[in-house]
Amino acid sequence: MTTSVGTPTTLDLGPATGLSCRECGHRVPLAAEFACGECFGPLEVSYDFGAVRREDIEAGPRSIWRYRRLLPVPSDVDSHPNTDPGCTRLVRADRLAAELGVRRLWVKDDTGNPTHSFKDRVVAVALAAARTLGFTVLACPSTGNLANAVAAAAARAGWESVVLIPSSLERAKVLTTAVYEGALIAVDGNYDDVNRLATELAAEHEDWAFVNVNVRPYYAEGSKTLGYEIAEQLGWRLPSQVVVPVASGSQLTKVDKAFRELGELGLVEPTPYRVFGAQATGCAPVSAAFKAGQDVVAPVRPSTIARSLAIGAPADGPYVLDAVRRTNGAVEDVTDEEVVEGIRLLARTEGIFAETAGGVTVATAKKLIETGQLDPDAETVLLITGDGLKTLDAVADRVGPRATVAPSAAAVRAALGF
Amino acid sequence: MTTSVGTPTTLDLGPATGLSCRECGHRVPLAAEFACGECFGPLEVSYDFGAVRREDIEAGPRSIWRYRRLLPVPSDVDSHPNTDPGCTRLVRADRLAAELGVRRLWVKDDTGNPTHSFKDRVVAVALAAARTLGFTVLACPSTGNLANAVAAAAARAGWESVVLIPSSLERAKVLTTAVYEGALIAVDGNYDDVNRLATELAAEHEDWAFVNVNVRPYYAEGSKTLGYEIAEQLGWRLPSQVVVPVASGSQLTKVDKAFRELGELGLVEPTPYRVFGAQATGCAPVSAAFKAGQDVVAPVRPSTIARSLAIGAPADGPYVLDAVRRTNGAVEDVTDEEVVEGIRLLARTEGIFAETAGGVTVATAKKLIETGQLDPDAETVLLITGDGLKTLDAVADRVGPRATVAPSAAAVRAALGF
Repeated sequence: MTTSVGTPTTLDLGPATGLSCRECGHRVPLAAEFACGECFGPLEVSYDFGAVRREDIEAGPRSIWRYRRLLPVPSDVDSHPNTDPGCTRLVRADRLAAELGVRRLWVKDDTGNPTHSFKDRVVAVALAAARTLGFTVLACPSTGNLANAVAAAAARAGWESVVLIPSSLERAKVLTTAVYEGALIAVDGNYDDVNRLATELAAEHEDWAFVNVNVRPYYAEGSKTLGYEIAEQLGWRLPSQVVVPVASGSQLTKVDKAFRELGELGLVEPTPYRVFGAQATGCAPVSAAFKAGQDVVAPVRPSTIARSLAIGAPADGPYVLDAVRRTNGAVEDVTDEEVVEGIRLLARTEGIFAETAGGVTVATAKKLIETGQLDPDAETVLLITGDGLKTLDAVADRVGPRATVAPSAAAVRAALGF
Repeated sequence: MTTSVGTPTTLDLGPATGLSCRECGHRVPLAAEFACGECFGPLEVSYDFGAVRREDIEAGPRSIWRYRRLLPVPSDVDSHPNTDPGCTRLVRADRLAAELGVRRLWVKDDTGNPTHSFKDRVVAVALAAARTLGFTVLACPSTGNLANAVAAAAARAGWESVVLIPSSLERAKVLTTAVYEGALIAVDGNYDDVNRLATELAAEHEDWAFVNVNVRPYYAEGSKTLGYEIAEQLGWRLPSQVVVPVASGSQLTKVDKAFRELGELGLVEPTPYRVFGAQATGCAPVSAAFKAGQDVVAPVRPSTIARSLAIGAPADGPYVLDAVRRTNGAVEDVTDEEVVEGIRLLARTEGIFAETAGGVTVATAKKLIETGQLDPDAETVLLITGDGLKTLDAVADRVGPRATVAPSAAAVRAALGF
């Protein structure tokens, strides 16, 4: 990354001014770096936002780029071909609310993104930053949603892509990535092996932007747009409670960051809010740490159907604990059985078919209510971040036709109990 | 339907004033009717739009309901829970344009709808009209996208649903309907059997709204919103050429109707446009009639991977021929091999993964250009109406990982040709 590191002052990444270490605060110029040179802590983007007005945002495009003044992307970001994710539905969920016994509930339905998960947001920001930083290849290790998003974004932009997946990955996830015809490489190994490979390759190929490795500080900021959109869609105010699935933990910390930024910028009243994390019991290291009152997250070996959340050593786990404790929230976890029931409950009440991670969110919200941790009288938003079409196996044994009948009206009526 | 038929004057279906026969012009009051009592021709909604301004539309919700003044739905339609479809992306497709050799190309990407096909549009309008007409159950015969859309819309609205499918339907399509937990009934028979059953049941159960049977005149109007959106997204003007997939043919005729209405209402300049129809060769009755210069569409027995277009006796076939000939367009068809190449071309160039019907549209556009029927210098819009995630089998044998390698950087590099 000679280009960028050599000439940091010429980089246009909008309001971004540098990178700072979340652990020791050490600051470096904007560049393709992700770990602090002083303490190896994670680097995060710093900004000088200046004045940002609601009108400027509202006059912007119907995509995450309406928030470009709050993201590490060039001001002309939407002039380059990209998947234009975001501006997904915020659904008033009265029927689900009634089932859960809460007063006012919303579902942020991110299945409406171009490849049907929130990953389109973070990848779009990573691509825009990577272009400015001088990269020419978009890459990632992934087991699913991220692979789809990277391959699609690269195709749309006319970039080469390199996507590494475990060779054991389900056929559907392979096909939905391979169809974009980047370089999809199956690796004989598990996700940990693939991830390690990505880090090694990122160090060796200076024109490859591994979105979740060497441009991770930029990539991660894309999740802030979930928080911005929720606030804008509520009429420029913050919800009282938000339930967010936790994999690496990055998304939860960025939604929290978005809410804080909006308050600091005067775009919303800085009203109090509580952030809740949702995990599957089969991979619940952050929930375990929260319940044990610890600051350190002990790694676990994942075993859950919620594969998109199955990160045993979540990089942002400690920051999730910080955000949750600071806002008087909680982290809770649910069994795979409850995950499937969560998927079915959301589908049956609101007509939204979520992937397993969405089942985790819904089931965790239910458990938080039942255990008195989530206030049923306070307005709550649930984040549904991926699509049930990608995890059909989770429900395959539980749902099906009510009956199979002969082709006669009498047979249909009999099956329906008439 | 005693309620509605008995008191037609009290019905609020917005600008809709009645139903008129497309064949003999006979008019009847708004009701749950679909065939002319005089000549058995299809009934269509008539309107008195009054004055409709761009500002009224632009100030509306980000869904098809921004066009409620142009649809047979009550003015308070968006106050009832529904899936809020529409306002999907219109994507400037420069990379696809370059491959096809055309100057200015757009893709209307309807995979962004709640259940990822345009069927959410027509079902939402059908549900709104059905509520006003006094129905209480939403129903359909279907082999896929429509089943998903009806089951989801009913769940969201808190309605009962009855969805009839052939028992041979693929597992994925069964699951993505069954998850919403309406009454899904598998019928031992083919789609024709199921369709016949639906007509029989519609006649016997006066509270069941079979969206594509007894409320079809309202349902079909939902496709107009594709045309309205394209024009609004182009900055309130009509494209010169539009390529639309043809199943029953309804969608094509309604896009044409939308363009005409916008011109008549002064919402756009009534500039000339050409409408093209796209079919799969394995089910190309309208294309065959077009090429033979006939007005009558002879039924065929479908045999194509584009199953969502596999209607051998298309109800609106003659009206497609009318629209295409009136606008100096054409109908063309492509082989299943070309359909798969069309899916791959769109994915590779624009990062959009379409179902087989989308492959039909892209491949047909290519053929129309190559045969000189579509003007490469005129602005063109392609309608992509469903999602590749639902028809994975179409590409399963064609795409896959570039290589499967050992977990080492050297192996990855070798696979990539370094």
